[in-house]
Amino acid sequence: MVITRQKLISSLGEFGLIEFIKNNNTKAGRHHNVVLDIGDDCFGFSAVKNSKYVVTTDILIEDIHFKTKWATPEQIAKKAVEINVSDIASMGSAQPLYLFISMGIPQNTELSYVKRLFKTIKKNCDKYGIHIAGGDTVRADKLTISITLIGICKGNIVTRFGAKNSDIICVSGQFGDSGAGLDILLGKKKKLNSYEKKLIKKHLEPKARLDIANLMLKNNINITSMTDSSDGLFKSVELLTTDCNKGAVVYLDKVPVSKELIEFTKGNKDKKYHYILNGGEEFELVFTINPNDKTKLQKLIPAISYIGYIDKSKKIKYFEKNNKMGIKYNGYKHF
Amino acid sequence: MVITRQKLISSLGEFGLIEFIKNNNTKAGRHHNVVLDIGDDCFGFSAVKNSKYVVTTDILIEDIHFKTKWATPEQIAKKAVEINVSDIASMGSAQPLYLFISMGIPQNTELSYVKRLFKTIKKNCDKYGIHIAGGDTVRADKLTISITLIGICKGNIVTRFGAKNSDIICVSGQFGDSGAGLDILLGKKKKLNSYEKKLIKKHLEPKARLDIANLMLKNNINITSMTDSSDGLFKSVELLTTDCNKGAVVYLDKVPVSKELIEFTKGNKDKKYHYILNGGEEFELVFTINPNDKTKLQKLIPAISYIGYIDKSKKIKYFEKNNKMGIKYNGYKHF
Repeated sequence: MVITRQKLISSLGEFGLIEFIKNNNTKAGRHHNVVLDIGDDCFGFSAVKNSKYVVTTDILIEDIHFKTKWATPEQIAKKAVEINVSDIASMGSAQPLYLFISMGIPQNTELSYVKRLFKTIKKNCDKYGIHIAGGDTVRADKLTISITLIGICKGNIVTRFGAKNSDIICVSGQFGDSGAGLDILLGKKKKLNSYEKKLIKKHLEPKARLDIANLMLKNNINITSMTDSSDGLFKSVELLTTDCNKGAVVYLDKVPVSKELIEFTKGNKDKKYHYILNGGEEFELVFTINPNDKTKLQKLIPAISYIGYIDKSKKIKYFEKNNKMGIKYNGYKHF
Repeated sequence: MVITRQKLISSLGEFGLIEFIKNNNTKAGRHHNVVLDIGDDCFGFSAVKNSKYVVTTDILIEDIHFKTKWATPEQIAKKAVEINVSDIASMGSAQPLYLFISMGIPQNTELSYVKRLFKTIKKNCDKYGIHIAGGDTVRADKLTISITLIGICKGNIVTRFGAKNSDIICVSGQFGDSGAGLDILLGKKKKLNSYEKKLIKKHLEPKARLDIANLMLKNNINITSMTDSSDGLFKSVELLTTDCNKGAVVYLDKVPVSKELIEFTKGNKDKKYHYILNGGEEFELVFTINPNDKTKLQKLIPAISYIGYIDKSKKIKYFEKNNKMGIKYNGYKHF
C-alpha cells in the first residue's frame, strides 16, 4: 500500500483499503479452490464435488451492537468474525472458507484504527483457516461491519428442526456472563471488581465453538438439531422446538454458570435465571442428541452439560429441580 | 406473519422480518440446489459439479449513497439489487443465484416502508431468478443495506486483467447521465425540466447489463477482460489496463451520450467529459474484445460502442477525434 503521512481514513480511500487487505491477506486462499481472488468485480471459487456450502451473514453497527469507548478495535473485529463462525459451527460438520467484509467507516477515523480492525480480522481468519475474499468499504456516520461467511459441509448439515421426542438437550458451556457483562458496562460504574471485569471480558470477547461442533461430528455423535445461543438460551430452546413442532423440559439448575455470575447476582435467583435465559451473545452451542449417544459424548467432551429433553407437548416447561417455574421471554429486542 | 395494528418496524422485530421474507420469497430456490433455506443459522446449497461460483458484496448507507427524500423505497431497493447483479454480469457467463441481505433500519421507520423495500428486492430477484437466501435485520440510525450475491459461472470467468495489445475497448451504453442526475439532485432546484427529470431517473434507477454479458458469452464473443462502470469510465479503463500492465487509447467522441446530457451540459465539452469519465454509478459494461470479434459483435448487439484500444504503453491517452486531451481523474471519493 501507499505509505502516507496523513492519519485519517480519507487519505487512503477505497482502492487503498482493498490493496491493504490484499497485502495483509491470509494464506488460506490457495488451499480453498480460489479461481479469482479479492480485487475484481467478484471473488470466484470452484465447487468441490459432492459438497454442500453454507452461508451466513451478520451486521454490527456502532452504538447499537458495540461502543468504541467500551471495546478496542481488536475486540470489535474479533467479535464480528466469531459471531459468523458461530453460525457456521451450528451447521455441525462445516468449515468456514471465505469471508466477505463490508465496512462503513466514519470519515474522521484514524487510519491506524482501521488497520487494527483489519489486522484483527485477518488474525482471526488465520486462526480458522478462513480466506478474506472480498469486501466493500464506504463512508458512514457510524462504524458498520457487515460480514458474510461461506463454509463447506462435507458431512450432513445439522439444522434447527431435526429434534425427535426424548432427544437430550445439551449446551457447550456457561450461560449468563455476556448479558451480565453488558449490564455492568451499561451501569457505567467507575471502579470494577475482578468478577465484573471478567464478565465484561466475556461480553466483549466471545468465542465460537467450532472446535466442539467439529469434534462431535468427527466422532459420529448423532446431533439431531443445533443452533447457537446468540439470542439467549430461551430463544435457542424455542427455535429447536418450534421448528420441529415439539416441546421441551429444561432444568435450569443444570445450566452451567460461572462463579463470577454467582457473585454478580448475589444469590438472587430471578436475576441469575434472567441472565441465563435472556442474556444472549454467548455463542454457545445448544443442541439435541439421541439419548443413546449420551455416554459416548460424556467421555468425548466432559464439558458438555445436559439440561433437559425434547417432548411432544409443543410447550417449553422450565424446572428448578422438581419445581416448575413461570418463565417469560424477556430477551434482546432487535428493534 | 403476525398481523399487527402498530405501524413501526419495532412492532415486528427481527424474527417477524425473517418470517415476512420467508412468506414473500422468490420461487427460484427450488431450482437452485437449495438444501437448507432461509431461517436457520446458515443457508445451505449443494455444489453443482464442475462449476465456479462468484461472489460480490456491496453496502449502501442512507445520506452517503442515497437520500430517502430523493428516492422511493422501490428505487433504493432496486438499485441495491442492480449494483450487485452488475458485478455478477462483469464476470461474463455468470448467473446470480443467492442473495443475502443485511439491513439496518431506524427504529421509527414505518412498517409499510420496510415492506416496500423487501417487496421490491423480491420483485427484482424474481426478474433475475435470484433466491433470497438469508439476511440479518438490526436497528440503525441510518437505513443501511448490505447485500452479498452469489452467482454461478458455467463457462470461463472474465476478469479485469485479461486484455491483450490491440484488443478493442467496448462499452454497453451511454455515459454521464447518472452523475449529471446526482448533481441536479444536489442542486435542489425546485422546478425541473423534462431532461433533468430523465437524468435524475437514470441516477435513481440504474440497470445491470446481465442480458448483454450473457448474450455475448452465449455467442462465443471472446471477451478478454470486463468490469462495470460503477466508479466511472475513467476508473473502469484504468482497472482494465493497470491490472494487465497495459495502456490504452480512448476516443471520447466515440463514447455514447444521451441527448439529455447534451442538453444539460449545453455545449460545454469539459462538463460533458467530466460526467462521462467521472460520473459513475451507470453500471454499464466496459470490456475488451479480440479485434477479430468486432464484426460478429456489431451484428449481434448493435448498441455496443467501440471507444478505443489497448496498447502496451502503460498510459491511458484520451483523444477527441485526433486531438490528445489532458484528462485528470476527478471521480467519486469513497472517503
